[in-house]
Amino acid sequence: VLISELSARSHLPVPTVKYYLREGLLPGGRATSATRATYDDSHLQRLRLIRALVEVAGLRLDQVRQVLAAVDDDSAPLHDTLGAALRAVGDAAKVDAAARSRVDAVIRRHGWHVSADSHNRDGLARALAALASLEHPISAGMLDRYFAAMHDLAEAEVASVPSETRDAAVRHAVIGTLLVEPVLTSIRRLAHEDVSARRFAPSEGIGPSPNV
Amino acid sequence: VLISELSARSHLPVPTVKYYLREGLLPGGRATSATRATYDDSHLQRLRLIRALVEVAGLRLDQVRQVLAAVDDDSAPLHDTLGAALRAVGDAAKVDAAARSRVDAVIRRHGWHVSADSHNRDGLARALAALASLEHPISAGMLDRYFAAMHDLAEAEVASVPSETRDAAVRHAVIGTLLVEPVLTSIRRLAHEDVSARRFAPSEGIGPSPNV
Repeated sequence: VLISELSARSHLPVPTVKYYLREGLLPGGRATSATRATYDDSHLQRLRLIRALVEVAGLRLDQVRQVLAAVDDDSAPLHDTLGAALRAVGDAAKVDAAARSRVDAVIRRHGWHVSADSHNRDGLARALAALASLEHPISAGMLDRYFAAMHDLAEAEVASVPSETRDAAVRHAVIGTLLVEPVLTSIRRLAHEDVSARRFAPSEGIGPSPNV
Repeated sequence: VLISELSARSHLPVPTVKYYLREGLLPGGRATSATRATYDDSHLQRLRLIRALVEVAGLRLDQVRQVLAAVDDDSAPLHDTLGAALRAVGDAAKVDAAARSRVDAVIRRHGWHVSADSHNRDGLARALAALASLEHPISAGMLDRYFAAMHDLAEAEVASVPSETRDAAVRHAVIGTLLVEPVLTSIRRLAHEDVSARRFAPSEGIGPSPNV
């Protein structure tokens, strides 16, 4: 298909598609003349992935680039690729040493296999430090509960990763990890609305909500 | 304290503090002369909250403003305030009607009390539609599992909200809902690193990770 149709089917403006082509995020099409090229389903899928990483997962373009580089690097073992894709999303900003030690200790205690340089260790340490500075520390018991709940879900999620082809596995894992985050975040906010309503609303508010 | 110390203790540059004052996100201090004012602990706490909402929860400034407005509105019942603060965070962009119907049906089936105009309904619908467009739909079984897991956690989280004073309750709920999100997201990514490592890494990789 032509770039105009690629644009229409991905719901992205033509200039955006051209920008991704120039930036190398989207591979070039097959040239049919000096000024025209055609694109196939792989281009459409790639565009949809980029769009979702930006709009749904909220990644910056440099993070999208790192995730795609990890996905495209056929030379790396599958496990390294998944790790690299996830690590790329973290942020390398400075982090409170005490919070980081706490994170390392919890990960060790749970026996998780996580590379020592994973940005997600720092991401968690930064989030915990921010909460502590707001006098809202996360207790050891609650942290263990979060670890257990997330691991349960991860087991179920990774069990559905197809292992036949490397491409399918990487793609599935990246989407399943990063793009499911807003699903969980939204559901958690809805759960908080519900639990707050039950706890704080006037008692006549209890029972299935009438305005739904 | 003076604005310079407020800046130092909140780890925010003086121009940023002044910007928040101008924008009305931070209440003015007590004037001690024509050009000087002093600030107290309530200002420091407010600044830390704004900083965390921006840097940790990733909110835009207009969303921060809505959250703070809900927090500051003493006239509203507590439950409405919490709902308003959470609703403010969602995004009002257009959403796929089929995905939205699915969300409404799941919420109804679980008997959750969620206002019909909560932006988080749309947020969830948008996230589900994005995954479906990437040929990575979330199954009904997995969605139910997410609902159950998030509700379990929300029960434990809301149970610790102090109910003595309205201010403390609102503040705790806002921080506990929004600022814990990056904690859960980080833990989930770490869990995925672990589960992927166990599933895809060479077998000698199993056992506590040597590089931790």
